[in-house]
Amino acid sequence: MKTLAALVYPGFQTLDFFGPLEMLGDLGDEISITIVAETSAPVTSVHGQRLQVDKTIADGSNYDLLLIPGGDSALEAAKSSALADWIVATASHAELIMTVCTGSILLATTGMLDGRKATTNKIDYIGTVPLGPRVDWVRQARWVEDGKFFTSSGVSAGMDMTLAAISHLFGDEVAREIAVGTEYEWHDDATWDPFAKRAGLV
Amino acid sequence: MKTLAALVYPGFQTLDFFGPLEMLGDLGDEISITIVAETSAPVTSVHGQRLQVDKTIADGSNYDLLLIPGGDSALEAAKSSALADWIVATASHAELIMTVCTGSILLATTGMLDGRKATTNKIDYIGTVPLGPRVDWVRQARWVEDGKFFTSSGVSAGMDMTLAAISHLFGDEVAREIAVGTEYEWHDDATWDPFAKRAGLV
Repeated sequence: MKTLAALVYPGFQTLDFFGPLEMLGDLGDEISITIVAETSAPVTSVHGQRLQVDKTIADGSNYDLLLIPGGDSALEAAKSSALADWIVATASHAELIMTVCTGSILLATTGMLDGRKATTNKIDYIGTVPLGPRVDWVRQARWVEDGKFFTSSGVSAGMDMTLAAISHLFGDEVAREIAVGTEYEWHDDATWDPFAKRAGLV
Repeated sequence: MKTLAALVYPGFQTLDFFGPLEMLGDLGDEISITIVAETSAPVTSVHGQRLQVDKTIADGSNYDLLLIPGGDSALEAAKSSALADWIVATASHAELIMTVCTGSILLATTGMLDGRKATTNKIDYIGTVPLGPRVDWVRQARWVEDGKFFTSSGVSAGMDMTLAAISHLFGDEVAREIAVGTEYEWHDDATWDPFAKRAGLV
């Protein structure tokens, strides 16, 4: 069984987080999901849903997998040095790290993506990628895989990236079974990204 | 501003609920979202996330919109006569009702879909549609619109149905803007449903 730290912070984007959690949760007994936040108080999503927290960052950083959602507030979360320390410790230990949307920027601000290829959402791309100046940002990609880092484009792209991560960890058949079970049309081509063009990035 | 009652019950399917909430929440000031449950205790999703509740069914049934997610536990939720009474009262008053996956079955068991066209998820289709014997079930459809009832196929189909409901309420441009903002490829053709064939229904 793999252990997953699913990070939340105030204002996290709803689907960035729960899309990947649906796909990962459908692994059933293969995964143990822990909701982690900086403090133990319930964390409110950008749309106002209040989620209870399983563990705080003070409880440890020993997880197999890490999920970091995005949100406009990711840049605010990036100001916490305690959170940055936990992200570095958790990502250093984990065998696979998944980021969605501006969750990629939050990870990039810790330096963990330095020298790596990565992507983030396309609408805020020009304004946010300078926050990770040593990252090799990819303009057109649904998601990017570089070593143990799986970074995705905006919001719904997190589901496609997560299925790719599941395929990497558990095999392609498992990922496709989850896609069918959720009646989800998996964009399984990482280069599929019409939103980069729409945002004028290519 | 529209008021939305977003119903949860123990074991609700994660993406059934949060996919539509992402799309609806992106309406911003156009919508006020209230998480409603039978009791005030936090409600745990099928994947273990504990969500706090804003209002209970005893607090009233006066909402403009109603969202009912699915889940294997929807059939268990259908056994509560208090919940059924609330669903009937809320759906009778609301101007638009959205159901996802077996949330359609939960609504059907109250009789509110009698004589109407509706759909539900395709994997459990054969076993569950007999619970709504007077509903005109549609085997192949991403979602079905009949009057004020928008019912969808399984899990991820809820997002496509919700964008159609948003288009109905606020206009096509608003729905497309939300799809782009979430980098979501909206399946905007309600007849698109490869999962019906895969499940052997057509």
